[in-house]
Amino acid sequence: MSRDKVVLAYSGGLDTSVILKWLDLQGYDVVAYVADLGQRDDLEALEEKAYKSGAKEFYILDLKEEFVRDFVFTSIKFNAVYEGRYLLGTSLARPVIAKGMVEIARKTGAKFVAHGATGKGNDQVRFELSVAALAPDLKVIAPWRIPEFFNKIKGRQEAMDFAAEYGIPVKATKDKPWSSDENLMHISFEAGILEDPAMRPPKDMFELSVDPKDAPETPEEVEIEFEKGVPVAVNGERLSAANLLKKLNELGGKHGVGRVDIVESRFVGMKSRGVYETPGGTILMAAHRDLEGLTLEGSLINLKDTLMPRFAYLVYAGYWFSSEMDCLRAFVEESQKYVTGKVTVELYKGNITIVSRESKYSLYDQLLVSMDDDLGAYNQSDATGFIKLNSLPLIANARRKNR
Amino acid sequence: MSRDKVVLAYSGGLDTSVILKWLDLQGYDVVAYVADLGQRDDLEALEEKAYKSGAKEFYILDLKEEFVRDFVFTSIKFNAVYEGRYLLGTSLARPVIAKGMVEIARKTGAKFVAHGATGKGNDQVRFELSVAALAPDLKVIAPWRIPEFFNKIKGRQEAMDFAAEYGIPVKATKDKPWSSDENLMHISFEAGILEDPAMRPPKDMFELSVDPKDAPETPEEVEIEFEKGVPVAVNGERLSAANLLKKLNELGGKHGVGRVDIVESRFVGMKSRGVYETPGGTILMAAHRDLEGLTLEGSLINLKDTLMPRFAYLVYAGYWFSSEMDCLRAFVEESQKYVTGKVTVELYKGNITIVSRESKYSLYDQLLVSMDDDLGAYNQSDATGFIKLNSLPLIANARRKNR
Amino acid sequence: MSRDKVVLAYSGGLDTSVILKWLDLQGYDVVAYVADLGQRDDLEALEEKAYKSGAKEFYILDLKEEFVRDFVFTSIKFNAVYEGRYLLGTSLARPVIAKGMVEIARKTGAKFVAHGATGKGNDQVRFELSVAALAPDLKVIAPWRIPEFFNKIKGRQEAMDFAAEYGIPVKATKDKPWSSDENLMHISFEAGILEDPAMRPPKDMFELSVDPKDAPETPEEVEIEFEKGVPVAVNGERLSAANLLKKLNELGGKHGVGRVDIVESRFVGMKSRGVYETPGGTILMAAHRDLEGLTLEGSLINLKDTLMPRFAYLVYAGYWFSSEMDCLRAFVEESQKYVTGKVTVELYKGNITIVSRESKYSLYDQLLVSMDDDLGAYNQSDATGFIKLNSLPLIANARRKNR
Amino acid sequence: MSRDKVVLAYSGGLDTSVILKWLDLQGYDVVAYVADLGQRDDLEALEEKAYKSGAKEFYILDLKEEFVRDFVFTSIKFNAVYEGRYLLGTSLARPVIAKGMVEIARKTGAKFVAHGATGKGNDQVRFELSVAALAPDLKVIAPWRIPEFFNKIKGRQEAMDFAAEYGIPVKATKDKPWSSDENLMHISFEAGILEDPAMRPPKDMFELSVDPKDAPETPEEVEIEFEKGVPVAVNGERLSAANLLKKLNELGGKHGVGRVDIVESRFVGMKSRGVYETPGGTILMAAHRDLEGLTLEGSLINLKDTLMPRFAYLVYAGYWFSSEMDCLRAFVEESQKYVTGKVTVELYKGNITIVSRESKYSLYDQLLVSMDDDLGAYNQSDATGFIKLNSLPLIANARRKNR
Repeated sequence: MSRDKVVLAYSGGLDTSVILKWLDLQGYDVVAYVADLGQRDDLEALEEKAYKSGAKEFYILDLKEEFVRDFVFTSIKFNAVYEGRYLLGTSLARPVIAKGMVEIARKTGAKFVAHGATGKGNDQVRFELSVAALAPDLKVIAPWRIPEFFNKIKGRQEAMDFAAEYGIPVKATKDKPWSSDENLMHISFEAGILEDPAMRPPKDMFELSVDPKDAPETPEEVEIEFEKGVPVAVNGERLSAANLLKKLNELGGKHGVGRVDIVESRFVGMKSRGVYETPGGTILMAAHRDLEGLTLEGSLINLKDTLMPRFAYLVYAGYWFSSEMDCLRAFVEESQKYVTGKVTVELYKGNITIVSRESKYSLYDQLLVSMDDDLGAYNQSDATGFIKLNSLPLIANARRKNR
Repeated sequence: MSRDKVVLAYSGGLDTSVILKWLDLQGYDVVAYVADLGQRDDLEALEEKAYKSGAKEFYILDLKEEFVRDFVFTSIKFNAVYEGRYLLGTSLARPVIAKGMVEIARKTGAKFVAHGATGKGNDQVRFELSVAALAPDLKVIAPWRIPEFFNKIKGRQEAMDFAAEYGIPVKATKDKPWSSDENLMHISFEAGILEDPAMRPPKDMFELSVDPKDAPETPEEVEIEFEKGVPVAVNGERLSAANLLKKLNELGGKHGVGRVDIVESRFVGMKSRGVYETPGGTILMAAHRDLEGLTLEGSLINLKDTLMPRFAYLVYAGYWFSSEMDCLRAFVEESQKYVTGKVTVELYKGNITIVSRESKYSLYDQLLVSMDDDLGAYNQSDATGFIKLNSLPLIANARRKNR
Repeated sequence: MSRDKVVLAYSGGLDTSVILKWLDLQGYDVVAYVADLGQRDDLEALEEKAYKSGAKEFYILDLKEEFVRDFVFTSIKFNAVYEGRYLLGTSLARPVIAKGMVEIARKTGAKFVAHGATGKGNDQVRFELSVAALAPDLKVIAPWRIPEFFNKIKGRQEAMDFAAEYGIPVKATKDKPWSSDENLMHISFEAGILEDPAMRPPKDMFELSVDPKDAPETPEEVEIEFEKGVPVAVNGERLSAANLLKKLNELGGKHGVGRVDIVESRFVGMKSRGVYETPGGTILMAAHRDLEGLTLEGSLINLKDTLMPRFAYLVYAGYWFSSEMDCLRAFVEESQKYVTGKVTVELYKGNITIVSRESKYSLYDQLLVSMDDDLGAYNQSDATGFIKLNSLPLIANARRKNR
Repeated sequence: MSRDKVVLAYSGGLDTSVILKWLDLQGYDVVAYVADLGQRDDLEALEEKAYKSGAKEFYILDLKEEFVRDFVFTSIKFNAVYEGRYLLGTSLARPVIAKGMVEIARKTGAKFVAHGATGKGNDQVRFELSVAALAPDLKVIAPWRIPEFFNKIKGRQEAMDFAAEYGIPVKATKDKPWSSDENLMHISFEAGILEDPAMRPPKDMFELSVDPKDAPETPEEVEIEFEKGVPVAVNGERLSAANLLKKLNELGGKHGVGRVDIVESRFVGMKSRGVYETPGGTILMAAHRDLEGLTLEGSLINLKDTLMPRFAYLVYAGYWFSSEMDCLRAFVEESQKYVTGKVTVELYKGNITIVSRESKYSLYDQLLVSMDDDLGAYNQSDATGFIKLNSLPLIANARRKNR
């Protein structure tokens, strides 16, 4: 009897290793698929490990450039933050991972895909909505929602036992009392001891950035150049999308920039607590916002800011590949046509200070702002008419109050 | 012939002193009106100065509590920032100053009010829209838009000459190469050397906060307590609105918190550059946002975030006393009914780090988030149905793409 | 062994009668609960029928006034239409039915509630979200989602057989090839032959309104009076909320007003086709919108129109009892404070034509609009300044295009 | 001394004829420019009349196709209505007229443009914002805001006298007690006797449509075909944009469709009353909305409906050629990619009834809606999980209420 093929989004960690073997035992030929998004894992060792865990095929896709260029930078163009603070690092990664998963399924002829996301989190939704949108014929296997699986692998100990039983290689490292997820945009931490929202994260948890208190005493200036909203160069050096973000991660991390600690609203209806390090992304957001201040009309900034929470929600909830998103992306691309120029920021112990900005498309007109009235463009008494007409509804409202 | 009375919003600075005398010369009896919003001027000296400049009457209104309670705290409830960064310190002050001006006009029987705002700025609009809404019968005199005035007083030198001619007392201090405006929420800087957006503000310009580089090496924790979105206590000490903000200004200023440097879109159609120090307001905003994360449903956070840019625009443009604002205030008041609790932040060299949060109305449910499935509230496999139904439109969309 | 009590939302139709008995057979003591929302059923016969079907207790709640006053009129205040056309008649009814169901559960001490909504529709969601919000401790039984039930009662024939077996009284009337739901706001039709969206509804399906072609040749004027957005009188006669809507249903129905035929997006992810008759509600919507034109500032109309789709979505999806809705209701209540006055409409063969409108709070100022310039409120040349300042961003944008 | 050239937007009516001559007397060489937008004037006679009134050059631009294709159809794609009812017929015409005016100015080398819009209306703003955006170097002359002009030409009698004095040909027709403006999208009526909002428009005022009472007793079906949101055929006949709208105007007008009578909020701050006939546009709007119901996801409909008021406001206020509009257009174009199909409507005495709709990109899935569970796409019990997760925030909110 032929076995069905399943593409598993594989990280090499304990969970997906156990899932890999479990799928194998369930009668699937497992295609282990690794998405390289710039996480600092030892990706080279993964192939061997996957095969030892029972994989029949192994693929690694380098999605770093696509991830940063198409997903992260689109989010930067929108100045997207979820619930005021989260820069969406994990949310942006899931659709590109799913896209790669579908690509491998097509290449290998698999009819199934599987992931190791839990049944209470957002990631399961993001993976599965992405697959639904890209390849609705593929069937998704989510072991953490399957009683036969989760009743067997109830905790870390059971997973370790299962690994031992089937010869799955496991790192000797002690388990950390939180879970984390990393890509070029950020590293996230949640669960474990972080589940108490009044509990401060331990100092040694952080990985991408130093504590501001340990950052250098000397500030450092960084110049970022944008073309149509896309960051293209750092300190005069043109870099690919992924390399640019990596460079900014180093600079930001060195200076303790981009840590966030929040209680957020999961799409699946509960509150959860997350801690994030987004050094490069935070710098980009600050610089991009500043350049927009120089190059976008106030009414457009207002419209973008009004739409942003919807964009952020859609990203967060996993709707990257939806018609609504197609429309929002068309909108934001058009908005960036003059967002070209350079912003210099100073990094210092967690602070990002705007030092200067310039653009050939600047809307800022120093002569207009200053008191020189000979421009013709603006006569100070023009403001009288402007105010008068804008007052009319207020006056009409005031007058009726006494009726 | 009887002279008309005019209430002048008077600061004691060179400009409004010259305007006071000029109005007197134009045949008005000038009522000098000072709004005390917590600016650190020597208000006691103003009365004598006003009379020396030609005032017939002098009033000072202590609006500090009203300003912070009704204006600043409403803005905090909305997490309001204009164009992503400006906390609206000046914008929030104008309507309360105008309200006081109307009150003095009613008390003194004046039919005219006057202000010293320039013809290219936002403040003229904010003053005059507020007066239109509160007292449409009052006539506004804006000397900086009257050719007879501004052609005579072309610059600082002419103003000094005019002051000398009429015996107006002038401080011996050297003029600063920028203009500033201060109240309990912030101090703003603009114009002069700041008109070059690529020019970094000089270190000695700042008044309310130290440079993060000069801030203490030792971080400081601050606990802020909120009741229905209103900050009521700092470090366990209940304080009036104004005193609470003052306290946070001291703490924030000491640690270099709350500086912003932006190019913003004026309501009157041009871009301008502003630098702001908002130490206490910035702390409040961070703490309030965090408490909302714990106590507001995600859908409500999203709706608030979507409406915020409109609220911020209305504040910025001077529409505080409008029907639209009445409705937005009713909305935001209702939204805060459970925003009660405590947030502890750590201040360190410009950083505000959330340390912990708690609320008796917390929506965060640790048991629900963790993997304990015995709650009944949530079965991990429920997510399957949730995802399936949310997938339906994506699947339908995917399928038609191939038609 | 004691039996658990369940409150069943009971209509007396075949479906809920079968469910009643089935629940009884499952071991529950069934409390039959009828919500009187003005549906024109023979409510008096329901008690006997319920008992014959196995009920242990029977309650009927007259919710007509509450329904119209608190639910329908709030929706009118928002000019709420879902997807451009649907006036939300069923969506508005579900939460008030659920509220009554919870009330009966509290009164009878029941720990369970049940409803007869299907597993593919919106109503199940509306019922259950309402119950979750009002009484999260109550457990919901939805037989149409329980395999033991729906596998047994697969279609009308099985339901008839089941009824016959257990002596449930069934009307002799022939089954109609669609399903309908009625209350004071509307009657809805869906399913059956209507599932083909290219199929025109049969003429004899409609119940509340005549075909415009059969409506009187003579038009009829109707004057509606509003106080703070609430309709209070028709043709000079003050009526209670429910009676007013009933009166307008008669008038609108007589003139063929208020039919809608749409394909709509269900909250559960699929498209469905619905046909609605909303005679009185459609008249109210037209008259209310017109009065707002006279009494609300343009900026407030714009804000209301912007928020309306969100309100309509929340109503449609069943979120009446949510924090977000509380905030939107606070908003809309405040918006209506001057929506007081009279609107006269003419009804004629499906048309609602505005004939005249008046309000003591009108913002319309005939003198201002006409060319009389002596008012002082408006000088035609004021428009020059207004235009100039509003042009500034456009000019700045135009100029950079050539750079 | 050389005379400056001015391009005057010329209609041949009394007002612009007088303005033409007055500009000539002021020392300008007047280029009379007529925009043909499908108004049913005798355009051929205009050239001679213009020369007799003092024009040096005469141009007529046929803008009908551009107007309908780029302006009207974009508005249809957005389902744009201003303040709930106005289909923006005049607002859409002004920017295309201004665009033509700029084109003629470039062609003739004129540095000035002029228009006959009054100083209290929206049209002056629409013309001048458009010119500012397209050609900020051009200077605008608006005689109705110039005291030398409007003090001389105070009313119709003075205009007639002026015409007589300078030999300007004037039609013998009696002046109508309202003013009107016509193009292919609509005819508008305002001013004069319409300034009383309680006054019903006289029956003989209407021009493009019969009174519903006088419309045929026999209904008429019309099939409209759309491709990507653009109407391309009527009753199977492919037509150019302008011809299609003309055809629908005839059909709609014949059946009394598309009359609206409103009090609206002018951009210049006052309320005004307008009456509109938009027969074809109203049919298109109804058909397009219906097709979107079939082909757009609910979330996208919601987003479009949320953005629509902003689009409508921008059109109304004259911001067609702005960055914000560029972005909204990019958005709406993307949204229409599947809005392809046919809608049949029935016209009858003012009513537009949807009769049927079809699209190869329909999202409607009859099998999914019906009770057939074998699809795999939807299991009725999936709804349980969907409801449970959506309930979580409501439950958390309910529980804290008792704390």
